[in-house]
Amino acid sequence: MSIEANGDDESQTHPLLSSEKPSLARSASQVAIVGANLCPIESLDYEISENDFFKQDWRTRGTVQIFQYVLLKWLLCFLIGGIVSLVGFCNNLAVENIAGVKFVVTSNMMLARRFVMAFVVFWASNLMLTLFSVLITASVSPAAAGSGIPEVKAYLNGVDAPGIFSLKTLFVKLFLKSRCLYEPSSNCWNVMIIGSISAVSSSLIVGKAGPMVHTGACVASLLGQGRSKKYGWTWSWLQFLKNDRDRRDLIACGSAAGIAAAFRAPVGGLLFALEEMASWWRSALLWRAFFTTAIVLMILGALIEFCESGKCGPFGKGGLIMYNVTSTDISYHLWDVPPVLLLGVLGGLFGSLYNFLLDKVLRVYNVINRKCSGYKILLACSISIFTSCLLFGLPWLASCLPCPADAEEPCPTIGQSGSYKQFQCPPGHYNDLASLIFNTNDDAIRNLFSKGTNDEFQYSSILIFFGICFFLGIFSYGIVAPTGLFVPVIVTGASYGRFIGMLVGSHSTLNRGLFAVLGAASFLGGTMRTTVSACVILLELTNNLLLLPLMMLVLLVSKTVADAFDSNIYDLIMKAKGFPFLEAHAKPFMRQLTVGDVVKGPLQLFHGIEKVGNVVHVLRTTIHNGFPVIDEPPVSGSPVLYGLILRAHLIELLKKKAFLSSPEPTGIDVSEQFSVVDFAKKGSGNANKIQDIVVTEEEENMFLDLHPFTNASPYTVVETMSLAKALILFRQVGLRHLLVIPKIKRRSPVVGILTRHDFMPEDMISLHPAWTRSRWKRWRLTSPRWLNPF
Amino acid sequence: MSIEANGDDESQTHPLLSSEKPSLARSASQVAIVGANLCPIESLDYEISENDFFKQDWRTRGTVQIFQYVLLKWLLCFLIGGIVSLVGFCNNLAVENIAGVKFVVTSNMMLARRFVMAFVVFWASNLMLTLFSVLITASVSPAAAGSGIPEVKAYLNGVDAPGIFSLKTLFVKLFLKSRCLYEPSSNCWNVMIIGSISAVSSSLIVGKAGPMVHTGACVASLLGQGRSKKYGWTWSWLQFLKNDRDRRDLIACGSAAGIAAAFRAPVGGLLFALEEMASWWRSALLWRAFFTTAIVLMILGALIEFCESGKCGPFGKGGLIMYNVTSTDISYHLWDVPPVLLLGVLGGLFGSLYNFLLDKVLRVYNVINRKCSGYKILLACSISIFTSCLLFGLPWLASCLPCPADAEEPCPTIGQSGSYKQFQCPPGHYNDLASLIFNTNDDAIRNLFSKGTNDEFQYSSILIFFGICFFLGIFSYGIVAPTGLFVPVIVTGASYGRFIGMLVGSHSTLNRGLFAVLGAASFLGGTMRTTVSACVILLELTNNLLLLPLMMLVLLVSKTVADAFDSNIYDLIMKAKGFPFLEAHAKPFMRQLTVGDVVKGPLQLFHGIEKVGNVVHVLRTTIHNGFPVIDEPPVSGSPVLYGLILRAHLIELLKKKAFLSSPEPTGIDVSEQFSVVDFAKKGSGNANKIQDIVVTEEEENMFLDLHPFTNASPYTVVETMSLAKALILFRQVGLRHLLVIPKIKRRSPVVGILTRHDFMPEDMISLHPAWTRSRWKRWRLTSPRWLNPF
Repeated sequence: MSIEANGDDESQTHPLLSSEKPSLARSASQVAIVGANLCPIESLDYEISENDFFKQDWRTRGTVQIFQYVLLKWLLCFLIGGIVSLVGFCNNLAVENIAGVKFVVTSNMMLARRFVMAFVVFWASNLMLTLFSVLITASVSPAAAGSGIPEVKAYLNGVDAPGIFSLKTLFVKLFLKSRCLYEPSSNCWNVMIIGSISAVSSSLIVGKAGPMVHTGACVASLLGQGRSKKYGWTWSWLQFLKNDRDRRDLIACGSAAGIAAAFRAPVGGLLFALEEMASWWRSALLWRAFFTTAIVLMILGALIEFCESGKCGPFGKGGLIMYNVTSTDISYHLWDVPPVLLLGVLGGLFGSLYNFLLDKVLRVYNVINRKCSGYKILLACSISIFTSCLLFGLPWLASCLPCPADAEEPCPTIGQSGSYKQFQCPPGHYNDLASLIFNTNDDAIRNLFSKGTNDEFQYSSILIFFGICFFLGIFSYGIVAPTGLFVPVIVTGASYGRFIGMLVGSHSTLNRGLFAVLGAASFLGGTMRTTVSACVILLELTNNLLLLPLMMLVLLVSKTVADAFDSNIYDLIMKAKGFPFLEAHAKPFMRQLTVGDVVKGPLQLFHGIEKVGNVVHVLRTTIHNGFPVIDEPPVSGSPVLYGLILRAHLIELLKKKAFLSSPEPTGIDVSEQFSVVDFAKKGSGNANKIQDIVVTEEEENMFLDLHPFTNASPYTVVETMSLAKALILFRQVGLRHLLVIPKIKRRSPVVGILTRHDFMPEDMISLHPAWTRSRWKRWRLTSPRWLNPF
Repeated sequence: MSIEANGDDESQTHPLLSSEKPSLARSASQVAIVGANLCPIESLDYEISENDFFKQDWRTRGTVQIFQYVLLKWLLCFLIGGIVSLVGFCNNLAVENIAGVKFVVTSNMMLARRFVMAFVVFWASNLMLTLFSVLITASVSPAAAGSGIPEVKAYLNGVDAPGIFSLKTLFVKLFLKSRCLYEPSSNCWNVMIIGSISAVSSSLIVGKAGPMVHTGACVASLLGQGRSKKYGWTWSWLQFLKNDRDRRDLIACGSAAGIAAAFRAPVGGLLFALEEMASWWRSALLWRAFFTTAIVLMILGALIEFCESGKCGPFGKGGLIMYNVTSTDISYHLWDVPPVLLLGVLGGLFGSLYNFLLDKVLRVYNVINRKCSGYKILLACSISIFTSCLLFGLPWLASCLPCPADAEEPCPTIGQSGSYKQFQCPPGHYNDLASLIFNTNDDAIRNLFSKGTNDEFQYSSILIFFGICFFLGIFSYGIVAPTGLFVPVIVTGASYGRFIGMLVGSHSTLNRGLFAVLGAASFLGGTMRTTVSACVILLELTNNLLLLPLMMLVLLVSKTVADAFDSNIYDLIMKAKGFPFLEAHAKPFMRQLTVGDVVKGPLQLFHGIEKVGNVVHVLRTTIHNGFPVIDEPPVSGSPVLYGLILRAHLIELLKKKAFLSSPEPTGIDVSEQFSVVDFAKKGSGNANKIQDIVVTEEEENMFLDLHPFTNASPYTVVETMSLAKALILFRQVGLRHLLVIPKIKRRSPVVGILTRHDFMPEDMISLHPAWTRSRWKRWRLTSPRWLNPF
């Protein structure tokens, strides 16, 4: 966690930077790497703010408005499903056609023995595609870089990284310092699609699932925000959705739709969103996400049927990956279990190693990418060139194999995509390594999973391919382009699964394609550590339910083994990026600390009726987002905690200049001055800023009555509560601020405020004398994740 | 909600009856119908009680103990999976053999034209099996009656109905008033299995899935409690599991295993537990449940392989239901959608009607069953006789059909189970209605789902069969025997699905078996209202993933239609039984009420150092389970809320007689007198009772220092918080007591205690003047469930 903010002025010019403690303003956990940039992060607020406006809002909502609200949610889910399935379809089709043309052109040159020319074409087209992807990502939308799944997962946990999106010209921005921008709040999903298409087409070992999830989340956020200012009619319908809770739900549906569209796996996508991404879930949301993924499936099905008539380009089958490995009866016996267990153990070991290496490489890349724009491009180009050289060079090591007599497709494949590539071989022969490399990742997976091809590959070729996928996957992920992890993980797992299958050979009743499927499962279990969703996604991909018992076995073993070493890949990436992700369960040492131990800091309070100048001063000089409001004598008999007021609401008050000339409540109905809409959550980046508020000297001496705008019943905990117990409340309810009240009434009625950052082990470990950092490290090192008692 | 407790003495002799308010002691929501009896119910407590002992427990737990704890959890899951799969296997085998013998004997008599004799055999064997099931259930374990799913669902929501289990002889107990006994806490699962086998074998339209879930929950609970007193060695390992949180997790795994074993559907079972049963879920639990269901699947697979060699009785294929409807390519087009939509709509209408009727019938049955034991038996016998007459009589209405020339199995089937029953028909002919009726439900479903049999059934036979299943399913459920709902719902749905398929005929590319599958999906969606899990269970049952898009469509439509009328069947049953189920979301009117409005009742407090006589008196005269502890001058400067103490802990103090002679804390280390184990949650029914505590007059004048035993940091809310917002905390964290503190410090430091019952709309609706009962009813009537804004 050695990430530091750029400098002092950064935190001053970014009042959105959401530290609650000035002393921690520049600590590591207040900023995160979004895309390749260091951005201030903000927490989301799922608490119901019970002030006068929200009460009024509840009371006045009639059946019609509730109907609008419910209908709108379903409508948005329908639209999300529709758009995401279209995107997924286009994405797939474009990759198939671009990569198809590239491979056919190269192959034809090879066939004409123009090897150097072929290499130059291959090399140049890959470089151009990579460069295009990096340029468009870095310039237009740096946050589109990477898988996107960690960002969306963090957002669903309550971490937002808002930024300022200003559309300057491409090349101007490229050489300026890139801005912070977080995806679910901006309309750069078109960038993500184009970037993802060119990155995947450029023979880099990167996937499309992550960018699809990110796209789904963006589409959901964008639809939820609506175009209220342009088209007035949407306003009245969308106003009820202007809060963090509903936006979170939409984004959860969007991310489920993303996986569903990437793999044509509706149930698997839903379960992935549920198991891996969402921090809060409930059965109403399950149903809506189910609806969304059903829409995705139906539209995809219709589009694929359309493509089957050959209207989708020379190489576009639009089939997505659907590796149909159905064989009428798969039977397996007890002696198939040892090799399957071996696969599980290997998956766990390789998976944790993969995560470890990826984490290290990503941290180095983060440093490089943040230096300046040129470095990003240089890095991506080096990776592309290196990849091209390896991919073109290594097949020469493989010896040529004669075409099998009973091959189901033409061998060698000439002028089209297929499983037998001739490469440098004489006619009637094929190069097995080139057959894997000179195809899209999807085709390589299909090839590895295929069942009637037991002797298609040599041991050495499979091993080399495994090495390529494993290491190039790690080195390709971190470049500033939309890159997914799912497909690289599946292809890597399938390659060593196939290898084990070849070793076992005829000793097993399982064919080698099924070993490849189980290998993919084991590597998914070892890296992503998902169980149910990985299982269902693979079953939906392979359309074979009879494999279920072995797949469950392999997933259980690989996850258990891998959990002994490190945590899942998305959590590692989130940590490397600096997102303050709130775990569902407390670390053991949190039971030793009370909340009173943690909140020792100067506390910024407001009085129920506060001087305007005071409010402005505090807002300008601090970066807090919530302030306790206190009533003191003579307003009340003794100091009383009235509630909690949010920065956004205070700024709204200042903007509307709802000032009083004397410090006495006027009793005027504030609902005449304000409406609920004024206090609705603004879209990311659109929030009012205190710098834009101008207050005259005369106004500074006036007063603000904060009572009607204060959340009068915030959640509170007593200072003697253990941090572990407070975390349960904080995490389960989804809070942004948690007020700490004193046990014994002798001081101020509020002791402090807990925020997300107070529960981060890294920030807090030094507070407790008995738990030094080294001891905590020892705890982490000596206790594997499955020894976590929760 | 018109269920009343039996009388005044009931609530006096049941101090475990968990009302927090004396005035509500005998209100409807304090008792529930468990089995056929009215039982007091108790809430479960998931809050971490932070008193000195628990703090000490945390601090002293070393890595070894954590390792024990984690290992034990996995071991228990393994055992649950193993036992449940064995039970499921035996259950299936026994039903296949018993029903097989019965049907073959009857068929042979029919073949010999001895129709009366055949009827008598059929009638008598059914009656005997039903009677056996009812007798064993009613006498040994009344709580085993019914599906069990509502009880387990309520338990997982935090509602327990503890009772006293005393093993008297069968016939003595039969004619006494049956005791209250809730399953997850007793070892009567053997009763459930036997009862379920005989009920299912007796040709009643009842299923086995519900009892299997209940069995899974029992096994889990029993294993979690362990046999600590008999085998000392288990004590030290099991002590960390002696709390409601861990028990809840185990029971969730057990219920997932139950469905997995009943249908051989591991992922479906897991999702059912997640979607329908569990109120709290987290990803660690998902993984453990996945492990459990994987174990179930593997052991079941091994056992079925064993049976394939013919060692499992004349009729035992042990195959469970696995309706393999794979046809290599299912294709469907746009014109298949209208009939599928029609199925969805029909499923919704039939489903809500089914729920409505079942609810009404169940309420009548509840009254009958509670009158006396004779009535239960009489009711069950009438149902059995009525069923036998219908099943034997109706096939005479069906005309005989000639055997198809291309039949895959012998036609007519003689001397074995099969799809073509001759019944009264001449040789070479079969009776299509008898083929459905004179088989187990599993075989009937397999028959309806079969694909190569387009002309096997006549319209009239299918319609009659639908009527039988629909109405007999409703009337059979409520008898005092273990009866599931899943299989009747599937068979009913399959029958009208097949009917629609026959109507559509060759206009559709889908065959009639697939229509039956979709019909089953629609009826599952219409009654249970599950989406993802119903979808996955059916896919696992039919082993056909290509059906997914249509199945999703049909489930979405049927659930939407049905939700417009009533709620899901398990919720209706829970309501009819009187379980205070805590919904995840607030009713709209709860936003209008503050917690201060709700807690107006006399509050029973203790002081930090309290007189023994006072404690005994309060415990004897109230039925509260939690008491606020207050420190007043001179102990503290002003009245301070010290915390909350539980009844169970107070009784433990009284039992150990940890008394002080003067009202001053002695400073003696209480950990010498007590250990953590003393305060561990006892198994249901084993809790200490205040009646068993004897306190002398001298001791009554002594004092108790409650401080070390009080939960010093309970969750609190301020009295002005809306009930809706308090519910979020209460439900999400899983509380039993929630303390309400005053906004302004002028009174006692605590205003009242909220419990589960305070959030029940039925109890509370009258409190708010603006929301009269009728207005609330109008709200419920005018707004279908899908208009619920959450």
